[in-house]
Amino acid sequence: MLRTIIAAGAGAFIGAAALAQTDRYEMPADVAGTARALADTALDSDLAWDIVESLTTEVGPRLAGTPQEARARDWAVAKMEELGFENVRVEEFPLDLWTRGRSIYEEVAIVSPYPQPLYATSLGGAAPTPEGGLEAELVFFDSFDDLLAFDGAEDALRGKLVFVNDRMVASRTGEGYGWANRKRRQAWLEAENRGAAGVLIRSVGTSSHRFAHTGMMSFPEERMPEIPALAVSAPDADQIERIHHSGETITLRLRTHAGWRGEVVSGNVIGEIPGRETPEEIVVIGGHLDSWDLGTGALDDGAGVAITMAAAHLIDQLPENPRRTIRVVLFGAEEVGLVGARAYANARLADGTIEDHVIGSESDFGAREVWKFSSNVGPEALPVMDAMAREMAFLGIIRGDNESGGGPDMIPLQYMGVPMAALEQNGEDYFNFHHTPDDTLDKIDPGELAQNVAAWAMFVWMAAELPVDFRAGEDEAEAGDAAR
Amino acid sequence: MLRTIIAAGAGAFIGAAALAQTDRYEMPADVAGTARALADTALDSDLAWDIVESLTTEVGPRLAGTPQEARARDWAVAKMEELGFENVRVEEFPLDLWTRGRSIYEEVAIVSPYPQPLYATSLGGAAPTPEGGLEAELVFFDSFDDLLAFDGAEDALRGKLVFVNDRMVASRTGEGYGWANRKRRQAWLEAENRGAAGVLIRSVGTSSHRFAHTGMMSFPEERMPEIPALAVSAPDADQIERIHHSGETITLRLRTHAGWRGEVVSGNVIGEIPGRETPEEIVVIGGHLDSWDLGTGALDDGAGVAITMAAAHLIDQLPENPRRTIRVVLFGAEEVGLVGARAYANARLADGTIEDHVIGSESDFGAREVWKFSSNVGPEALPVMDAMAREMAFLGIIRGDNESGGGPDMIPLQYMGVPMAALEQNGEDYFNFHHTPDDTLDKIDPGELAQNVAAWAMFVWMAAELPVDFRAGEDEAEAGDAAR
Repeated sequence: MLRTIIAAGAGAFIGAAALAQTDRYEMPADVAGTARALADTALDSDLAWDIVESLTTEVGPRLAGTPQEARARDWAVAKMEELGFENVRVEEFPLDLWTRGRSIYEEVAIVSPYPQPLYATSLGGAAPTPEGGLEAELVFFDSFDDLLAFDGAEDALRGKLVFVNDRMVASRTGEGYGWANRKRRQAWLEAENRGAAGVLIRSVGTSSHRFAHTGMMSFPEERMPEIPALAVSAPDADQIERIHHSGETITLRLRTHAGWRGEVVSGNVIGEIPGRETPEEIVVIGGHLDSWDLGTGALDDGAGVAITMAAAHLIDQLPENPRRTIRVVLFGAEEVGLVGARAYANARLADGTIEDHVIGSESDFGAREVWKFSSNVGPEALPVMDAMAREMAFLGIIRGDNESGGGPDMIPLQYMGVPMAALEQNGEDYFNFHHTPDDTLDKIDPGELAQNVAAWAMFVWMAAELPVDFRAGEDEAEAGDAAR
Repeated sequence: MLRTIIAAGAGAFIGAAALAQTDRYEMPADVAGTARALADTALDSDLAWDIVESLTTEVGPRLAGTPQEARARDWAVAKMEELGFENVRVEEFPLDLWTRGRSIYEEVAIVSPYPQPLYATSLGGAAPTPEGGLEAELVFFDSFDDLLAFDGAEDALRGKLVFVNDRMVASRTGEGYGWANRKRRQAWLEAENRGAAGVLIRSVGTSSHRFAHTGMMSFPEERMPEIPALAVSAPDADQIERIHHSGETITLRLRTHAGWRGEVVSGNVIGEIPGRETPEEIVVIGGHLDSWDLGTGALDDGAGVAITMAAAHLIDQLPENPRRTIRVVLFGAEEVGLVGARAYANARLADGTIEDHVIGSESDFGAREVWKFSSNVGPEALPVMDAMAREMAFLGIIRGDNESGGGPDMIPLQYMGVPMAALEQNGEDYFNFHHTPDDTLDKIDPGELAQNVAAWAMFVWMAAELPVDFRAGEDEAEAGDAAR
């Protein structure tokens, strides 16, 4: 479906020619006024806090495919109905279940030279140790690149435990995560290909506490690990590093019960605020409902669930709905490989409504303040995004670039051409908690959470009210080709 | 043995009359100069860091009475000999061993209304659950005082799990600890007396992380608990609190293997810098060698071990030893009830050398900077302590009062009349780490550790060089009665 930029009721007219002349879009006063009023209401509202408190308390951890995730779906349906969302529904999809096994606790210890327990956790997708455990010598790699480049004797790693020591860099943008995650995702494969009996990594994340950061590994060509793979907390990795550099040979003992458990059901929960004029046009937002098993998923991603539900609910309290439909999708099985996101996008391909998604954005980076508004839209819509950013500036938000994604669960939709916006959060301390037992409600600041809701309510309102074609570009407008 | 205040070689003369007139003692210039030189050397030295790094890495956790504590004694003997201490020896004593059992991990979970695992740890001295575990309803008490005052129906707590929710206050002095610790020490008894099946407390400590603070309980009249007793991390206690206040009944499931294991051997490790003039006079300092099992005992009390060993060693590098002997005692079995401290004091009673201990002090409050110099000495020695404080002022140290203790392991000696000094450390964040898995080397700042060594080297040097009778007071001087 081709959409052109049309005149807004409020008198705005945006056309390529006009934009080329002025390169500035003036937000209609009534739209801006409502946006500001929504923000003011959001800043005074506890709604998002109440939602994330309810989810993390009444459901708690909710690993994809487990009964806990099913309880989270029940919770989400009930909460959406309570808040007055319409068309509330669950879209189920199949999932291969991986779990840690018997307990959240896994046994890892130095046997020699200096016997002591270590704090570690299996990575998602890891195989278990043999039932009685596994004892082997550790081979130390300073970095994942050193492991990649390792061309020692053919049996140098055979039967050994590979340890990879890369450190993650903390930053507001979280950009150290991708680099650090290479070892989490791929070290098992490099180690297994070289005959290792197991692999351990210095925990991804920036915590100095004795928590190990779990997270999914990657499985090229559907090959699954046959060896145990664990993350070791930073202080324990320090310990290994010190002993290694003293020249001693380290022997570890592991006993884990992780593994794949067969096919189960997961699902996405969907609710809507129907549009008053063009209800077939969808502004899609949301967070993901699943979490890792170690914490209660407050930051990842109870906060995103709460922020987007609360923002949509506040808009629903306006005297009349915005032009377009606001669809909140609470994705299942994000942590284990964007399974819910892919299921959602494929279902929209199947029902022919991908192009009805005018813009998308997910909140999935914790609960600190939004500080930057980025986008990935057609050039003709850029002045509108700039204008949105100007409206949000009073919240301490700057305008970012037009190269952004829209959050992990938006990747399949973006790949299919849906324009994206990103309300970027301060991630300076996100990786102190992320994917560890320490991802709990007390790590959320209610004031910063409310600032998020204010920003989201403004953006979602403006995106749903302004009849802007976010896809339209100088080249793409006519073709409707938005596969960027 | 009665000691009088005598003329120092440096020309100082301290007498009751002189003090009464001036109330000010001038530190002899050569003593002050050496003290300052020692501090300057200490501030540039890595020795304490190297010691605590070695202990926490090469021994790691060292629960009293375990083979790990025995390894710590071997380590301490070797380290003292390597550093040139004289008369290095171990004084063994018997100990009733308590351990957590199979693992540092203990299983605690909410069964209903919202199933989820909790992070918790047995308190020292606790009984285990029945082998298969224990499932029971939780009864919530806002505070330990509420439990003490509880006069509900006779069977109101029978078979239930008592939960006590007091919060600890953080402070520079750590004074919130004693109040918070009442529940840790005594809640088991109040619960057991009322027929409870177990007791759980909100973790003592000020951490917002998902660690539970272990620590010994108290056993009045040698009565031992027959019920499990655990601390629950603060975020998990928050979770229990929220669910309780929502009106729901909470059922928990516990499975622990804690218990007493019979009599074993522990010991104190002792080394000396012999005095050049009055070697029978002893300035006794030290830390404790044992730690809890969850962390590596870096702050509690690897730091104290390192600070006092390093300070003594720096003094030993002077051209000549101070007048008096410096004795470093690394106490065993502190955490489980000052067992090593009592063994040491009793052995000194037996060998008649208690009164040779001219002053004592232990470092056992982490590794943050020393900020206050307090004392508990006879009134005639007060001007000397004031003068010592003036010398240390450039390190950011103020003079405290004369009512202090000298650290936990000094309690029996102080009770027997030994004067005390306290180099008080900043404890603002000590209880974020204390008695948890998070007590690890990375929590020590090398610069602050070196400041400690500087302060200790100054104090120990001055106490061992100045021929001051720290016991002497207007009333007590003749009687030699120092049982204050």
